[in-house]
Amino acid sequence: MAMMKALQKKVKGPGLELCQVEVPKIRADQVLVKIEMAAICGTDLHIYNWNSWSANRVQPPRILGHEFTGRIVQLGADVTGLQAGMLVTAEGHFTCGRCYYCRTGQGHICDDVKILGVDVDGIFAEYAAIDAKNVWPLPEDGDPAIGAVHDPLGNAVHAAYTHCLTGQNVVITGCGPIGLFCIALARQAGARRVFASDVNDYRINLAKKLGADYVVNAQEEDLADIVHGATGIGADILLEMSGSRPALASGLDALRKGAVVSLLGIFSDQVDMNLDAVIFKQLTLYGINGRRIFDTWFQMEAALAAGLDVSPVITHRFSFEQYEEAMALMNSGRCGKVLLIP
Amino acid sequence: MAMMKALQKKVKGPGLELCQVEVPKIRADQVLVKIEMAAICGTDLHIYNWNSWSANRVQPPRILGHEFTGRIVQLGADVTGLQAGMLVTAEGHFTCGRCYYCRTGQGHICDDVKILGVDVDGIFAEYAAIDAKNVWPLPEDGDPAIGAVHDPLGNAVHAAYTHCLTGQNVVITGCGPIGLFCIALARQAGARRVFASDVNDYRINLAKKLGADYVVNAQEEDLADIVHGATGIGADILLEMSGSRPALASGLDALRKGAVVSLLGIFSDQVDMNLDAVIFKQLTLYGINGRRIFDTWFQMEAALAAGLDVSPVITHRFSFEQYEEAMALMNSGRCGKVLLIP
Amino acid sequence: MAMMKALQKKVKGPGLELCQVEVPKIRADQVLVKIEMAAICGTDLHIYNWNSWSANRVQPPRILGHEFTGRIVQLGADVTGLQAGMLVTAEGHFTCGRCYYCRTGQGHICDDVKILGVDVDGIFAEYAAIDAKNVWPLPEDGDPAIGAVHDPLGNAVHAAYTHCLTGQNVVITGCGPIGLFCIALARQAGARRVFASDVNDYRINLAKKLGADYVVNAQEEDLADIVHGATGIGADILLEMSGSRPALASGLDALRKGAVVSLLGIFSDQVDMNLDAVIFKQLTLYGINGRRIFDTWFQMEAALAAGLDVSPVITHRFSFEQYEEAMALMNSGRCGKVLLIP
Amino acid sequence: MAMMKALQKKVKGPGLELCQVEVPKIRADQVLVKIEMAAICGTDLHIYNWNSWSANRVQPPRILGHEFTGRIVQLGADVTGLQAGMLVTAEGHFTCGRCYYCRTGQGHICDDVKILGVDVDGIFAEYAAIDAKNVWPLPEDGDPAIGAVHDPLGNAVHAAYTHCLTGQNVVITGCGPIGLFCIALARQAGARRVFASDVNDYRINLAKKLGADYVVNAQEEDLADIVHGATGIGADILLEMSGSRPALASGLDALRKGAVVSLLGIFSDQVDMNLDAVIFKQLTLYGINGRRIFDTWFQMEAALAAGLDVSPVITHRFSFEQYEEAMALMNSGRCGKVLLIP
Repeated sequence: MAMMKALQKKVKGPGLELCQVEVPKIRADQVLVKIEMAAICGTDLHIYNWNSWSANRVQPPRILGHEFTGRIVQLGADVTGLQAGMLVTAEGHFTCGRCYYCRTGQGHICDDVKILGVDVDGIFAEYAAIDAKNVWPLPEDGDPAIGAVHDPLGNAVHAAYTHCLTGQNVVITGCGPIGLFCIALARQAGARRVFASDVNDYRINLAKKLGADYVVNAQEEDLADIVHGATGIGADILLEMSGSRPALASGLDALRKGAVVSLLGIFSDQVDMNLDAVIFKQLTLYGINGRRIFDTWFQMEAALAAGLDVSPVITHRFSFEQYEEAMALMNSGRCGKVLLIP
Repeated sequence: MAMMKALQKKVKGPGLELCQVEVPKIRADQVLVKIEMAAICGTDLHIYNWNSWSANRVQPPRILGHEFTGRIVQLGADVTGLQAGMLVTAEGHFTCGRCYYCRTGQGHICDDVKILGVDVDGIFAEYAAIDAKNVWPLPEDGDPAIGAVHDPLGNAVHAAYTHCLTGQNVVITGCGPIGLFCIALARQAGARRVFASDVNDYRINLAKKLGADYVVNAQEEDLADIVHGATGIGADILLEMSGSRPALASGLDALRKGAVVSLLGIFSDQVDMNLDAVIFKQLTLYGINGRRIFDTWFQMEAALAAGLDVSPVITHRFSFEQYEEAMALMNSGRCGKVLLIP
Repeated sequence: MAMMKALQKKVKGPGLELCQVEVPKIRADQVLVKIEMAAICGTDLHIYNWNSWSANRVQPPRILGHEFTGRIVQLGADVTGLQAGMLVTAEGHFTCGRCYYCRTGQGHICDDVKILGVDVDGIFAEYAAIDAKNVWPLPEDGDPAIGAVHDPLGNAVHAAYTHCLTGQNVVITGCGPIGLFCIALARQAGARRVFASDVNDYRINLAKKLGADYVVNAQEEDLADIVHGATGIGADILLEMSGSRPALASGLDALRKGAVVSLLGIFSDQVDMNLDAVIFKQLTLYGINGRRIFDTWFQMEAALAAGLDVSPVITHRFSFEQYEEAMALMNSGRCGKVLLIP
Repeated sequence: MAMMKALQKKVKGPGLELCQVEVPKIRADQVLVKIEMAAICGTDLHIYNWNSWSANRVQPPRILGHEFTGRIVQLGADVTGLQAGMLVTAEGHFTCGRCYYCRTGQGHICDDVKILGVDVDGIFAEYAAIDAKNVWPLPEDGDPAIGAVHDPLGNAVHAAYTHCLTGQNVVITGCGPIGLFCIALARQAGARRVFASDVNDYRINLAKKLGADYVVNAQEEDLADIVHGATGIGADILLEMSGSRPALASGLDALRKGAVVSLLGIFSDQVDMNLDAVIFKQLTLYGINGRRIFDTWFQMEAALAAGLDVSPVITHRFSFEQYEEAMALMNSGRCGKVLLIP
């Protein structure tokens, strides 16, 4: 029986283990993928840290991870349209196909979703079994590191490209990886001005590298003042990527009347907000969940083919054996995207 | 010099006075209107009660009122397209015509708006001077009481018809006059089911009269339970007309994923809300301010011509002399729209 | 081996035969449905008449028909969420699930669609094999005749509800079954005025029965004159259901500037049109193909549940044995929808 | 009485004259502008050539021209918000302000529009009287040649930015000035691939200079083949700028299903087209008229501020005295935009 190494949550509680486990068997509608590169998501960190959400959701033993690039090495009997040897990544949300949302092109909010590396074994391993319908082929000449961050880049595309950014004054609150991706996406779309804010110096430097016109350290400067000073009227669009209440409040203050907002950052608690300003300013707020399947993926493919460069967001690479170091770095916040190599 | 009676805020502080004042002189771009019927808005009540907003905004002496039906009795020299004798009402927001919003069809959020009965003398009087561009002709055979409530009916049209309600499950939180109008508008548009909630028995009875399928007393029943029970999935649309935090929370709970919300009720304070649910449920929230000028008015005209009946919302009529009684009734909440007859 | 009767195109050329054939065997992802009622589509008539399109597309032997109500009598091994005994109809377009359109919620324009009764055996039979994912459950207490016309009613919903009809002046050119459905849908949505035109007296009478405000015999009256006379400005929306060039031309003339058009009627030839008027009037034209899967179906279900009554559209019922008579009636045009009972 | 030179149509029939005429007197709501640079529109050429449209519309004597940059030298008594000395251009459509379209933010399709240089005296002169509400201030450090082409650039913005071009495969049929502007706008918005076609070598070279990825000589190559070859599926968006029937047909063939089309080029005759393909492909066609006032202007301002470079489109400059030469060049088609300097 073929064995492989994998980063597994073996028991409830904090931590992970690097184990030897069996190579998964695939169903007729799945493919087996040899993982070349994985990336660590905030969700993986939550499960590693064993926060209350993961304690309620994750059933050990569970191999973590859902962001990856790999190659197909085996095809299930019913799989068509894919070949062994293809370089691929995948949408990590396995949708039911039967609920109202799945039947109306809204699988991203499926009522009975299973998540790779959360509800089923994930890709922090040498091999993984992936549903064929979720596989997303990558260009053969592409950078596998970019393939490994398609999932969070897709979140950014979903949040940012819900609006047409061309010619717009765009504010991005929160410069974690998804906020950084949004900076690049706004540039790519011909935004007029891109404003970004964070409180973490490491990320502020990355935001400058990604090409924001104004990068605001929210502990030292007033975002709304800077935006109104530069625009005279306020920004057209807010992409809220921080999950921070003060960031949301200053982002809303930075907007002109009639502006639009994408909400993606999770607050983990009730949020005290000035809804009357939303009403008097005639704002529209869009909650953004996951990636549209596969509308968002096609948009992402097009943006990358048209020259989108998000490589500065990927700041660190570790081997599977260095996973503790990688997780500690993620907890420090002094990083962009962090890769794990099997 | 011709004199007329008018309900005037003579000095800062609570109350009003029924006075004799000069009939207003009109500018070249205005018309003089003889008021036949006026309606009392919540804003008038706030100024009568002299809440903190009105203490900051209103400069006495000021004639109140902006909801009316009247007849044109005199035309300014530059006015075209209107005739003496026409039955009219008016949009009470006088927009600047020069700001970004006015130049892009968004005069309802004009940067330099003047409001009838707030910033300039209003229509709780025998005559009023109205900018010709704001005048809205009414059908000669129409009910003047309906003309007198065009302003708040327009708010309801703006909030409700931002979405296409045909076939939708619609929740309306708050059954003041604007919420009641929304019930009629949802029925008119072929909504599948209309759910309405309030805590005031008088208004709950009116909601039933207007044709809501389910009317929920929020102190006795759980709105979200009732909506999920009836729909199996949750409602498609929430029209938040109450400005009440518990109503907003239960309205959001009543929604299915991917639903939309119009926010019109003013909260007068910070609102503690579950934004993560907005994100996970992929909701979209629209702040709604005033009436689109004149998009909303044409929609309202069409709805009325197609048979919209909002007459049950108009519950009381008083003479100008009975204004104290009318305001006391408004403060009690045991009423729909209240008319004042000069 | 169980046998059943079926209306089959046995050889290339005009006509059909009522045959005894084997009851179909179902795949693991299909259900077997006992047909209770079928309806004849224009497509069935084209294949019966063997026009050039069908000569190129249909490979005999082929059982025709795709509009039906039936009961599930057998479930394939992999089918979940359905039960034997359920009253159902089905979307007759079997989509590939893998193309760009299927992966972005646009299965109605799938690149590799198979059509029931055209590319695979259909439902003019006692039993039919239907893909489980295409099955649409009907209310147990519903009229099976209405279930049998869900497919064309869905075309009407797709064309009509691409726009919000509430308060609109709506013109419908062509009063075949789909045009007639559109009249009922416009009424249901609270349209301000509904104008319909045809040249066939039988259908003109049906249009009146369905509730159009103005029904124009295009051979005797000028549609555009009547619409401009009634509205003063022109109509807001044109639903082109006729595939007739003069009808399209007069429908476009009937519109105000900035209006929208749904094109559903097939012209079968090049169309000579005044595109400059489309440009100068700032019109928007929407090509409408099939039914959105299943967005349109949910809208149809909601409209029916909210009281939509399309029963006057169903004018005739025949037994399978009377199929020649039914087809002759269809060719005469003196009918609405025609049902076939096994 | 101050005199000035002006290019005037003195009598009905072909041609123009360079005359001495009085400097115009301004109304209280106008400004007097000293013209620094003018550009020749196809409309000016039609009036110069005296085609049938102009013979029906233009009442000599008439000073032509509506595309310009100039400086305000005098302000009418009622003008606010503008100052003498400002560098400006203007929207050349003077709207009525009272019709349905003007009252709903759709002044570009006003029912009673007057056009500068067509219905009132234009700007092919040393001075012109311009309605203050139509004036559009330009950046002081801007290129006056760019100011002079704001009107046709606005047409291009209206046609192109009706859709979000980011990541899209865009086809532009017709490389006259407006088509060339569209190429630059598509690049600015982050289009994935830009395809342009024409039959004129001069314009084909300009299209390459503007940055189209594929420039097709429609007399030598098949546009649809090239687009399908490059994209595998067809283009997402067609911007039809040619008014040529074969160009429209090949542009429609080049599209994928579900694509969108902006129609701006005028055909001057009935167009024979395959509407069934529009229906089966579920295309949407948008007629585009003029510029949204002033939505389009703000979009144009933003695009220019964000770095849009359309200077290669401006190919020739002539003095007023050389007007015959300029018009002959325009008639030859071997040019981009042609400027006239007073």
